[in-house]
Amino acid sequence: LPSHLFAGNSVPDAVRTFCTEIVRETSPHALAFKFNLAFFEALGERGLAVMRDVLRAVPEGMLTIADAKRGDIGNSARFYARSFFEDYGFDFVTVAPYMGGDSVTPFLDYPDRGTFLLVRTSNAGGNDFQLLRSDGRPLYRHVAESALKWSHDRPGLLGFVMGATDIEALAALREVCPDTPFLIPGVGAQGGDAEEVVRAAASGPVLVNSSRQILYASSGEDFGPRAAEEACLLRRTLSPNRPVTGGDS
Amino acid sequence: LPSHLFAGNSVPDAVRTFCTEIVRETSPHALAFKFNLAFFEALGERGLAVMRDVLRAVPEGMLTIADAKRGDIGNSARFYARSFFEDYGFDFVTVAPYMGGDSVTPFLDYPDRGTFLLVRTSNAGGNDFQLLRSDGRPLYRHVAESALKWSHDRPGLLGFVMGATDIEALAALREVCPDTPFLIPGVGAQGGDAEEVVRAAASGPVLVNSSRQILYASSGEDFGPRAAEEACLLRRTLSPNRPVTGGDS
Repeated sequence: LPSHLFAGNSVPDAVRTFCTEIVRETSPHALAFKFNLAFFEALGERGLAVMRDVLRAVPEGMLTIADAKRGDIGNSARFYARSFFEDYGFDFVTVAPYMGGDSVTPFLDYPDRGTFLLVRTSNAGGNDFQLLRSDGRPLYRHVAESALKWSHDRPGLLGFVMGATDIEALAALREVCPDTPFLIPGVGAQGGDAEEVVRAAASGPVLVNSSRQILYASSGEDFGPRAAEEACLLRRTLSPNRPVTGGDS
Repeated sequence: LPSHLFAGNSVPDAVRTFCTEIVRETSPHALAFKFNLAFFEALGERGLAVMRDVLRAVPEGMLTIADAKRGDIGNSARFYARSFFEDYGFDFVTVAPYMGGDSVTPFLDYPDRGTFLLVRTSNAGGNDFQLLRSDGRPLYRHVAESALKWSHDRPGLLGFVMGATDIEALAALREVCPDTPFLIPGVGAQGGDAEEVVRAAASGPVLVNSSRQILYASSGEDFGPRAAEEACLLRRTLSPNRPVTGGDS
């Protein structure tokens, strides 16, 4: 983070200033803001208070995503869902599939809210288990197919986390699920290519996420405008015809 | 929770009283306390402050487990590990495997701390993916084998979450990993049998966890002593020869 923000300020205060400035500067170019819970939780209770402040700074009508990757038995999952959807008021939560149906469905029971299930992740370790083949299909395909069944007749919106680093998986799953929203991390610092992502998946709804490339565009006093530039560049690549929205006003 | 605790008190205050009383009453019969993060997080920042207070109430020398089931890319995982091990000071964290090696190893890099990786979980959804067979072995076996490789040459202690509801899996994995600590939930309310668990897995280190059966033994003013009775009964079944320790003093 830019060092000048820490001069005379506590770490939570510096993080609050940084994040609200990023939101203010980049919102004309964005559809959604994804909050990485790990970074707020690392600051303890004060970090979560900062997260609330930053959430309040997100302009009305923009989407918010709690990138929390929770996954626990049904009873615990209900509490996590309540926390993110009701207490913090996020629109979306990311959820992990390893514990199966009862760990995911409590999130899908919320109308007007969405769940992005980890299906094919962009990190190196994503290859460790997600590509294991069973009955001729990789694990991530089993996860996607089961999740579509779980979401049937449930009011919440189901989406998949599909890393930008496996274009083949993106395209293959888009063919099977033409209408499922994909949250696509891995563009930018992780090596995914925005144009390839669009070709592979943008026939259906996609949210392309870039974190580090925008957040850390500059560590100087110009971090805000520089982040806006990066966001603007990515937006142009993803949707050349979409006008800049006035999220800032 | 016992309704009398809420009379004139805020929910976080009632939860604090409940949990510290449970710790005080059951610690003579326990080796460890497992904190379910979902329930504390559901109370927002104040819930996490309550969790710190309850952690302080755990007698010196007893183990504490953050049942958080985190699983995120390496960079985020480092922040989660720092939060649970350094900020809150837990001895163990539960971690989810879906995102693979780089989501787990940051926890294993802590000396004198332990990571319980979800391998075979006791909930109904645990059957959805964990039993999928690849190369002749179920997914949970792949997870266990990979994790043993990741932990090699790392200073942290690796353990597995192995539900009491699949005795066959418990016994089979104990044969392959004679020295790996197993955290075993699912005894009691979830239907697992304590004696069967001991026969299947107690040739190696095991921590058997019972939550609801102890916590909710009574919803009256006697909830503390009744929880102690349940804990004592379970302890006697698990290790008939172990004396009651004086964790209460």
